[in-house]
Amino acid sequence: MTLKQVIIEKGLEGLFTQATIGIEKEGQRVLADGRLSQTRHPKAFGDRSFHPYIQTDFAESQLELVSPVFDHSREALRFLGAIHEVTLRQLPEEEYLWPLSMPAILPDEEAIVEAQMGEENTRYREYLTKKYGKYKQMVSGIHYNFGLKKEFLEALATEGQPLAEIQNQVYMTLARQFLRYQWLLIYLFGATPLAPTAYFKEGQELEGPVRSIRASSYGYVNEPHIRVSFDSLKAYVTSLRALVDQGDLIAEKELYESVRFRGSQSVQDLLVKGIQYLEFRIFDLNPFAPYGLTADDARFIHLFLLGLLWLEETEVDIALGRRLKEETALSHPLSSAIALEEAEAFFALLEEMAEQLHLPEADKALIAAKRAQLEKPELTLGGRLWLSYQEKGKDMARLGMELARSYKQAVLEQPFGLQAFATMELSTQAFLADAIQYGFAVDILDERDQFVKLSYKGHTEYVKNGNMTSHDSYISPLIMENKVVTKKVLAEAGFAVPASLQLMDLDEARQVFSQVKGKPIVIKPKSTNYGLGISIFEQGVSEQDDFLKAVELALLEDKEVMVEDFMAGTEYRFFVLGDETRAVLLRVPANVIGDGNSTIAELVAIKNANPLRGDGKSTPLKKIELGELERLQLKAQGLTAESIVPEGEVVYLRANSNISTGGDSIDMTDQVHPSYKEVAVAITQAMQAKVCGVDLIIPDISQPADSCQTSYGIIEANFNPMMMMHIFPAVGQSRRLTTDVLKMLFPEYRWEYGNKC
Amino acid sequence: MTLKQVIIEKGLEGLFTQATIGIEKEGQRVLADGRLSQTRHPKAFGDRSFHPYIQTDFAESQLELVSPVFDHSREALRFLGAIHEVTLRQLPEEEYLWPLSMPAILPDEEAIVEAQMGEENTRYREYLTKKYGKYKQMVSGIHYNFGLKKEFLEALATEGQPLAEIQNQVYMTLARQFLRYQWLLIYLFGATPLAPTAYFKEGQELEGPVRSIRASSYGYVNEPHIRVSFDSLKAYVTSLRALVDQGDLIAEKELYESVRFRGSQSVQDLLVKGIQYLEFRIFDLNPFAPYGLTADDARFIHLFLLGLLWLEETEVDIALGRRLKEETALSHPLSSAIALEEAEAFFALLEEMAEQLHLPEADKALIAAKRAQLEKPELTLGGRLWLSYQEKGKDMARLGMELARSYKQAVLEQPFGLQAFATMELSTQAFLADAIQYGFAVDILDERDQFVKLSYKGHTEYVKNGNMTSHDSYISPLIMENKVVTKKVLAEAGFAVPASLQLMDLDEARQVFSQVKGKPIVIKPKSTNYGLGISIFEQGVSEQDDFLKAVELALLEDKEVMVEDFMAGTEYRFFVLGDETRAVLLRVPANVIGDGNSTIAELVAIKNANPLRGDGKSTPLKKIELGELERLQLKAQGLTAESIVPEGEVVYLRANSNISTGGDSIDMTDQVHPSYKEVAVAITQAMQAKVCGVDLIIPDISQPADSCQTSYGIIEANFNPMMMMHIFPAVGQSRRLTTDVLKMLFPEYRWEYGNKC
Repeated sequence: MTLKQVIIEKGLEGLFTQATIGIEKEGQRVLADGRLSQTRHPKAFGDRSFHPYIQTDFAESQLELVSPVFDHSREALRFLGAIHEVTLRQLPEEEYLWPLSMPAILPDEEAIVEAQMGEENTRYREYLTKKYGKYKQMVSGIHYNFGLKKEFLEALATEGQPLAEIQNQVYMTLARQFLRYQWLLIYLFGATPLAPTAYFKEGQELEGPVRSIRASSYGYVNEPHIRVSFDSLKAYVTSLRALVDQGDLIAEKELYESVRFRGSQSVQDLLVKGIQYLEFRIFDLNPFAPYGLTADDARFIHLFLLGLLWLEETEVDIALGRRLKEETALSHPLSSAIALEEAEAFFALLEEMAEQLHLPEADKALIAAKRAQLEKPELTLGGRLWLSYQEKGKDMARLGMELARSYKQAVLEQPFGLQAFATMELSTQAFLADAIQYGFAVDILDERDQFVKLSYKGHTEYVKNGNMTSHDSYISPLIMENKVVTKKVLAEAGFAVPASLQLMDLDEARQVFSQVKGKPIVIKPKSTNYGLGISIFEQGVSEQDDFLKAVELALLEDKEVMVEDFMAGTEYRFFVLGDETRAVLLRVPANVIGDGNSTIAELVAIKNANPLRGDGKSTPLKKIELGELERLQLKAQGLTAESIVPEGEVVYLRANSNISTGGDSIDMTDQVHPSYKEVAVAITQAMQAKVCGVDLIIPDISQPADSCQTSYGIIEANFNPMMMMHIFPAVGQSRRLTTDVLKMLFPEYRWEYGNKC
Repeated sequence: MTLKQVIIEKGLEGLFTQATIGIEKEGQRVLADGRLSQTRHPKAFGDRSFHPYIQTDFAESQLELVSPVFDHSREALRFLGAIHEVTLRQLPEEEYLWPLSMPAILPDEEAIVEAQMGEENTRYREYLTKKYGKYKQMVSGIHYNFGLKKEFLEALATEGQPLAEIQNQVYMTLARQFLRYQWLLIYLFGATPLAPTAYFKEGQELEGPVRSIRASSYGYVNEPHIRVSFDSLKAYVTSLRALVDQGDLIAEKELYESVRFRGSQSVQDLLVKGIQYLEFRIFDLNPFAPYGLTADDARFIHLFLLGLLWLEETEVDIALGRRLKEETALSHPLSSAIALEEAEAFFALLEEMAEQLHLPEADKALIAAKRAQLEKPELTLGGRLWLSYQEKGKDMARLGMELARSYKQAVLEQPFGLQAFATMELSTQAFLADAIQYGFAVDILDERDQFVKLSYKGHTEYVKNGNMTSHDSYISPLIMENKVVTKKVLAEAGFAVPASLQLMDLDEARQVFSQVKGKPIVIKPKSTNYGLGISIFEQGVSEQDDFLKAVELALLEDKEVMVEDFMAGTEYRFFVLGDETRAVLLRVPANVIGDGNSTIAELVAIKNANPLRGDGKSTPLKKIELGELERLQLKAQGLTAESIVPEGEVVYLRANSNISTGGDSIDMTDQVHPSYKEVAVAITQAMQAKVCGVDLIIPDISQPADSCQTSYGIIEANFNPMMMMHIFPAVGQSRRLTTDVLKMLFPEYRWEYGNKC
């Protein structure tokens, strides 16, 4: 029975369509004119010796960006996108990522620095240089790692058949068929039409444009006599070992086939362990895709590979496949497919398979779109690239740099989080960006719940909402959640806490009114964090009705209400992490500053144009609204949205200073007297917390905190405090708190890496 | 100016009425016939060397129960009630707490064992025995500790006056006035009318009944020539030190005045530190109050003390006060107050004070009620006791034991928590009971939020809801709260977790139906703990509509729904604490067992009569309802509430096994194969938790868990797991998990104490 028949018979359609997919993408760091960068691999990318995502390939300038393995090509590509965002953001200002496989400009060979990855590695690279020259190594590409689901392979096995046997059988079939049909992928995706003259050995220059220099014999290939057998894994292993033993190859990895068997260090072991997945290496970078590959193309490759397994021929003419590949690679980018009939037949098979597997309509549309390219070479990647090249005055450097600049620009315009994870909270996005940059293995356990796992050399940490971790004790958020308990714990620890009363209803409020009459007080719900239901009587409350109304408002938020002595002064947020205050922030209510000319509405619009401001979810700050509350606030000052404000005059549009209602965040970390930072740390320690947002009222931040605690008042301590307002304040220095969280979680990491130099 | 004038002038009425109050109550352990117990202080009461609540007084049989200090007498009395509940529950079955100050039966003096509190203590007690005899020491009483608010005393101070000076001034005044007017308290509260003949020295027997032998010269008093001066604290210190220096007293504490100055080890130090509070020692036990003192009387004493400070006379005739005291103490319990005019005047002052201080109506009513007793001695405590004694055939042992039995009975009838803290959750009540028993200092930080603080020799722990503590990491409940993350973490740790799908809406449900069709599955909301919204298709789901309906139900509980493979078997709850499974429980749906006679409704009524069953809040189990769901469940079995069930046949009234819907809890800790307990511990460790409720499906608990994990299925891991169902199971052995929590929090405690012997 063929595989297709088994799948249908056993009802394995669902399992067959699932896969594990990982994508590696090489790419050169270049300068604005398209020349390769001569700088070292940036320290900001962390330590290459283990970095799972950001590596170097042959040359020091040649980045290799590696996605983790996912169950869907879309996910792998998404993560690759995140790696790109991080990479582009950390590149030196003058550097870009060259978007094509082939560099437009090649330096003298001597000027190319091999990647500095340790002695053994260097020796290997020197050997390659000697044998193949450096230029061939400078061509970049995409490696597509593809595995079938273990459950699928297990289901294929007959009674008592070892899993390894099935794995080797199926993956060998896939490899053979790939070698047979890869020419079709080169037709569709080949994108190295030209190379600088220096690339070619003298006298061997290619005349016209081709589909893929890289996939042709002009690419980085073994000498013609180097051939291994794909008849069986055993034959493959034997022939490859022989080549190495004869000294034709220095190591197994010197074999440059377009498919590689993966799953162990040596191919020998695969016989026992079984092939785990295949690595397909023939893909040129798609310069029109910001990450070298579109999601559609990544999906199509998956479908193409399934199609190869769906084929029912068992006799595979690999030699024919190799010939078709070379021919296609060297054909003009605007020529039609060379074996059109075979191609049409294969597409017909793909369509039939899509039906049988109940693939979604999107997949069928994708297959149809690619099929249409068979007779329209101008729609293939190579065709499109060649046409663009004509448009750009036959200047590949110009074409590439225009694209490179636009990709870098698009990332820099969104500096807050990661577009790839835009569905998550901004603080978790920023946290993930740091984790990817420094090379922590990231696993998003629950995207909607902001739950991630980080690993580094066997050490695992879980993180929710950017800073909820194992480092805090369970009791500490529970203490902070309860303002009454918080006060008792603080009092116990020796802090002066304002006198307070607790109320459950208006009757109780009536009874205590005489005690608070005339005193400056603040009325607030017992457990809330967002400033809701809080009333402040700065001048003292004189009317019982006002007092009762404030209690009533607070009771809407919680069943218990606290009435506390009010302390005059300015409120600051201290972000404490570990045993250190990392950031101090002043929050100012939504405001505009007059220019003597513009209306308040105009000033608001100008202020809202700042990219920091948006919905407050995908941006660190929120746009100022001109809603009912803002208009009332203006009215109380005798103003309307149409009033023109004198130059320099500040007009507040809200009474509360929350960032979520358009407030400004102003970093004051270096302005606050250090003694208050110590106070915030001591408060955090009293809360038994490691991460804490401490709100202090301080009348004069230039004066030290006094020991009898009359120089400040404690408002509250918050668990899971906001980070974005510190990382991207409206005014003042950014405090990269997400990195501080990482440093707390992984003190053993070599933090000297990753400092942007 | 008098104190009263200052209070009014400075507007300190509110602060003046506040106070700190602590109550100590001595009491003998007795046997059923009223004889003193000869056993040692029970080990169950923990270690006397530091126990803050349960101490011994002079004799080994004489308990001294000590409340912490509170801001209201009501709170102190409430806590004293809790201490009594704990004490009565831990007393040997044959022992009771004698409710009167004076024992009804005195053993031979030699048979009285002095409290075993270390060598030095024993030597002191031997000295006392020699000087005063043992019998006088066997009389018990109440000590009322009273302090004014520090804020009040500070407000009284004039510019630059040290606080200690004010403290000493005010408390000396209060002490003098107390010595002057204490006779009134003896009139109202004296309750030692008789003593066994052995009590008296030969020839000195009292003739008839009196108000208070204990408060009279027949009580435990110093020799007549022992007198100290109360003119000033300095005079007091000098005269007391002289008595000690002359050898008239062995130590300062041998002075038995009815008021003592407290705040330091030696009286000398009080001159500098200031008196912190006063201890009033003249109160006889009220046998009609379960804890020796009623809340009303405790409040009246507070008001009485305020009245003493409200007095405007400055010349205080202490000698007259002492004469009136002795005369009152030795007057017949049914005689009128001896200095009626003075008494009326003092009550008039109390009434005037109550008006001026805006005291609540309840206080005014209390003052009026006590005033009425001046001319109605039969309403005084002594009068009532004397009348009861007549009623009980002049048998004090009978009278006392009837009361003692009823007090113990009332406590034993409510074994689950603490009546004193009935407003709190039962598990926290049980936890507090343990903490009080073992002698951890308890501070209820937030009653409504079940938030308590425990301390032991400088080590403090916070506990919420009975088992949420600093020992768990913050991330661990977050992991458990999220079923998707839980599964990933468990899978990572090497556990087989059932395959599952996540759905957000019915469209997604329709798409996956083909994948689950025919498979046994369970559908549940992503985050919920109470069994809500869970549907199980044990036989596999065949109809799409049924599947969609189940998903819809789960979507009502959460925005995400999980569809998991269902494993057949029985679900057990493993309670893991520290690194050990402490209890295993089987929960069985609400059911009755037929007797061939009774209707289902009758069987339910019989089952509901079990004191374990109630509202499920103040009881460990819930009464079975006969509501719509139960009737539907019966109907599905062809039954109604009126059906008669054959003997031995089990009828289930619910499909779900939750305790909260009337289910039974069956302890299986010793029945489950130990390997599953190890599995539960390993799961808990994977959750990074210390306290965890692990739900496992196990087809056969007698067979060991196999390593490939087909012998069990993991349902979920719960943080803050319920404890009461293990402590009071419907069937099987109780597992005192609250004690285990304490042991986890305080491993350094000497746990060999507290084992009930």
